[in-house]
Amino acid sequence: MRSAEYRPGRKLIGRFEHDSELLKSVTDFVKEKGIKAGVFSILGAVKGAIIAYYDQTKHEYREVQLDGPREIVSCTGNISLKNGTQFAHAHIVLADEHGNVKAGHLIRAKVFAAELHLQELLGPELVRKHDELTGLSLWEL
Amino acid sequence: MRSAEYRPGRKLIGRFEHDSELLKSVTDFVKEKGIKAGVFSILGAVKGAIIAYYDQTKHEYREVQLDGPREIVSCTGNISLKNGTQFAHAHIVLADEHGNVKAGHLIRAKVFAAELHLQELLGPELVRKHDELTGLSLWEL
Amino acid sequence: MRSAEYRPGRKLIGRFEHDSELLKSVTDFVKEKGIKAGVFSILGAVKGAIIAYYDQTKHEYREVQLDGPREIVSCTGNISLKNGTQFAHAHIVLADEHGNVKAGHLIRAKVFAAELHLQELLGPELVRKHDELTGLSLWEL
Repeated sequence: MRSAEYRPGRKLIGRFEHDSELLKSVTDFVKEKGIKAGVFSILGAVKGAIIAYYDQTKHEYREVQLDGPREIVSCTGNISLKNGTQFAHAHIVLADEHGNVKAGHLIRAKVFAAELHLQELLGPELVRKHDELTGLSLWEL
Repeated sequence: MRSAEYRPGRKLIGRFEHDSELLKSVTDFVKEKGIKAGVFSILGAVKGAIIAYYDQTKHEYREVQLDGPREIVSCTGNISLKNGTQFAHAHIVLADEHGNVKAGHLIRAKVFAAELHLQELLGPELVRKHDELTGLSLWEL
Repeated sequence: MRSAEYRPGRKLIGRFEHDSELLKSVTDFVKEKGIKAGVFSILGAVKGAIIAYYDQTKHEYREVQLDGPREIVSCTGNISLKNGTQFAHAHIVLADEHGNVKAGHLIRAKVFAAELHLQELLGPELVRKHDELTGLSLWEL
């Protein structure tokens, strides 16, 4: 395990705007606040979403479109720097009216109502760089 | 995004009583400790649960009853004030013996065994008020 | 609820090695860092995994083997002491290429790529002891 140590920065509680885009709202928020590293979680509900699965052989994301309202039953993510700017990486678990679940890498989602908890991390720059082996942008640690 | 900034308060680790009610246990705990805002997560197993899905058109919760034992594979929540008292809002993901999953807004669940991690948040009062647009009790930020 | 209060220790961000074992990597990491109590979450993807469901009547884990790549859409866990050494307890939610989900108690998983956020907790020793009623190793609080 490669690792780095951080000090706690601000703890922020947020309320997403109705009809906003979930992931963009997080990215805009951290840019506005000048947060360069952090971890967050989100609870709430969306009107629809696009999630993705990473094909580990072909090195490409395959998207799954989820139409219609769903509960955000889990959404965990982190903030780091990619190409010199803030990048939010999040995975999301969504439940429908029967409690059935779809989940994956979050591409985008339209907010019905959602609550954010974000912990800023202070310390060394946390930077994503292309990793040849996986084809992903991984942390340089 | 509307937001507010908090300072870290107490970090609490808890063990739920066997056969207790999951959400009520959290609410009773934060009242006893005088915690007015916070975020928490729970791991463990339940003997049964009732979860819900919010109908975004009719503005009402639809409950799904889940009988029988399940693992709590994720449970994320927060504490804020509603009608002048502590209110716990949590979403839960439950897995059965085959690893199959049901998830939603947590109404109640009977504890087999469960572990709590709760982070108290210190700062401005975090208050829920009725929101006309969604029909939900959302944070006034 | 039995509980104990902790102070925040180190906040660590980690990148798992490709092809490493997920749970063992966490345990090795906390041993190396001298972390005796903590909470963590993981995002990423695995090449395969074994999860488990605890039979609440027979008091035994039943394993479910999941072959093939999946996204880690949620993985929440904690560190405490069991038999005098660091023990990682984690539950995991995994999604396949269609966004379909399997979840349970994490036994082991082979890392494709994964990101760790771990919060060290400082305070009283957090120790697991056998609990007669559930058959599990629960915290002595």
